[in-house]
Amino acid sequence: MEIAILLYDNFTALDCIGPYEVLSRIPQADVKFISADGGTVRSDTRALAIVTEQTLADVHSPDIVLVPGGPGDEGAAADPRVTSWLARVHETTRWTTSVCTGSLILAAAGLLDGLEATTHWASLERLKEAGAKPVSRRYVEQGKIITAAGVSAGIDMALELLAREAGEDYARGVQLAIEYDPQPPFDSGSPEKAPAHVLELMKAFFDDLRPAQELPSDQPLTS
Amino acid sequence: MEIAILLYDNFTALDCIGPYEVLSRIPQADVKFISADGGTVRSDTRALAIVTEQTLADVHSPDIVLVPGGPGDEGAAADPRVTSWLARVHETTRWTTSVCTGSLILAAAGLLDGLEATTHWASLERLKEAGAKPVSRRYVEQGKIITAAGVSAGIDMALELLAREAGEDYARGVQLAIEYDPQPPFDSGSPEKAPAHVLELMKAFFDDLRPAQELPSDQPLTS
Repeated sequence: MEIAILLYDNFTALDCIGPYEVLSRIPQADVKFISADGGTVRSDTRALAIVTEQTLADVHSPDIVLVPGGPGDEGAAADPRVTSWLARVHETTRWTTSVCTGSLILAAAGLLDGLEATTHWASLERLKEAGAKPVSRRYVEQGKIITAAGVSAGIDMALELLAREAGEDYARGVQLAIEYDPQPPFDSGSPEKAPAHVLELMKAFFDDLRPAQELPSDQPLTS
Repeated sequence: MEIAILLYDNFTALDCIGPYEVLSRIPQADVKFISADGGTVRSDTRALAIVTEQTLADVHSPDIVLVPGGPGDEGAAADPRVTSWLARVHETTRWTTSVCTGSLILAAAGLLDGLEATTHWASLERLKEAGAKPVSRRYVEQGKIITAAGVSAGIDMALELLAREAGEDYARGVQLAIEYDPQPPFDSGSPEKAPAHVLELMKAFFDDLRPAQELPSDQPLTS
């Protein structure tokens, strides 16, 4: 079972390491971290560097593809090596998956046209603009495509996928092995649950991350 | 705020990447992945290689130390470079923390003698043998030492720590940013919640990982 995890500059680490920790426990899993250029790929904080030991050109027919999100999603979505590879391998995958804004990259590869899909809560509008039907759910399954919501949602998606591939008992065993019995000290993990002033702060934060995108196209860049 | 994440051969990736994703959002965080030898360090699946750009000798007074667990815990605990570094920097840290069997490494450095601490559920007995008072809780705080339970528990611990350092609103904002609103498809993440037959399977799995340790000292190695 070949599992290809596609990295790119400025990815968000937990997006891929959460599902990796679960999917790497599939019996006979052969997990490969890959990138367009190979070599070291740096995460969004710049503090973490993961080695991709193979390039996209080395991986031809993975069973599972996982695409994380992150501030680098636009760069990856604009890289024709990435999108053409995704479109090509998707023809023969068992599962094509994304976490967070990784779904924007799947969309750029033409894989989500007219399909329900999800992404980070702050990027649902972008997903619509990219041609999908955005849905606010922890993960969304459409045929063999599964898209997960923001960052940590990939862990939940991966447990579901593991159950499909190795059975529910096995998936429960892996949940126990990673002691995934969440007990966050706060209950603020979705726009519906966060206090209003915290939600406003985080909306402003994500708007600042993508100022150009938030401007209507007819608005001048200076006031 | 210097945050040192100590890697060693055969660490478990989610143990450190979960807290990393949270703690790297502390204002002015300077996160460093470090190891005894520097260079590339491989996780327990062998599929993931993270670059440690500095060695223990390069980092003298981190504010926060985080030690992940993993099958390589015994090797790390037996490395005097690791234990002497931990004992030394602990004198001036704000927080000294571990996830999963990382607490066994803190114990080997003499930091947990007589203190309450936790670890992966399958290693609580080992933690007792190492001189701590094992407790089954998601995370355990004793002065400036916080130990977290298995693998995914580090995310919960890190949110608590973030609240201490940057305030509860800020921590709630980061929880929202990483959309940490867990919705696992099963509820099998602790020995109390897992079905009995799944728990037995996983106990056998972890026993096989450490056959020598599970034998009473007076029992012959062959029957």
